Amino acid sequence: MTKATFYHAGCPVCVSAEQDLIHIIDRQQVDLEVIHLGETPEKIVEAEAAGLQSVPALVLDQGQVLHINFGAALTDLE
Amino acid sequence: MTKATFYHAGCPVCVSAEQDLIHIIDRQQVDLEVIHLGETPEKIVEAEAAGLQSVPALVLDQGQVLHINFGAALTDLE
Repeated sequence: MTKATFYHAGCPVCVSAEQDLIHIIDRQQVDLEVIHLGETPEKIVEAEAAGLQSVPALVLDQGQVLHINFGAALTDLE
Repeated sequence: MTKATFYHAGCPVCVSAEQDLIHIIDRQQVDLEVIHLGETPEKIVEAEAAGLQSVPALVLDQGQVLHINFGAALTDLE
């Protein structure tokens, strides 16, 4: 099972990317967690440590960060 | 079946994103085509028409374009 964490901030680009990903990710193989950084700002530090620069982004369990389009810079959420 | 087209140009960021996506995309539900724009530059026009601005990117069949990280601008491939 691959662990994947989708970070977003509720922005239109974020919501759109989330909908797209949910339809193509293999949920049998991927344990997908969705984190709304606007609602849980205490997790911004963890996101930054993972290498996030903007949202929406998907972090995979081996440390890969996939920034998907551009909704907002992480620094704008702080 | 969802059709998805992954456009890349063989760059390190592209190869990395492709490997990541192949592991999380549901291949039972998604018909994934991979197009190397460096090797098939005649497809750059089609990619631009789809809304691609950079590679790597994934285009879904309802027209959504997911730019994933940044390897190269499409204009740099022309």
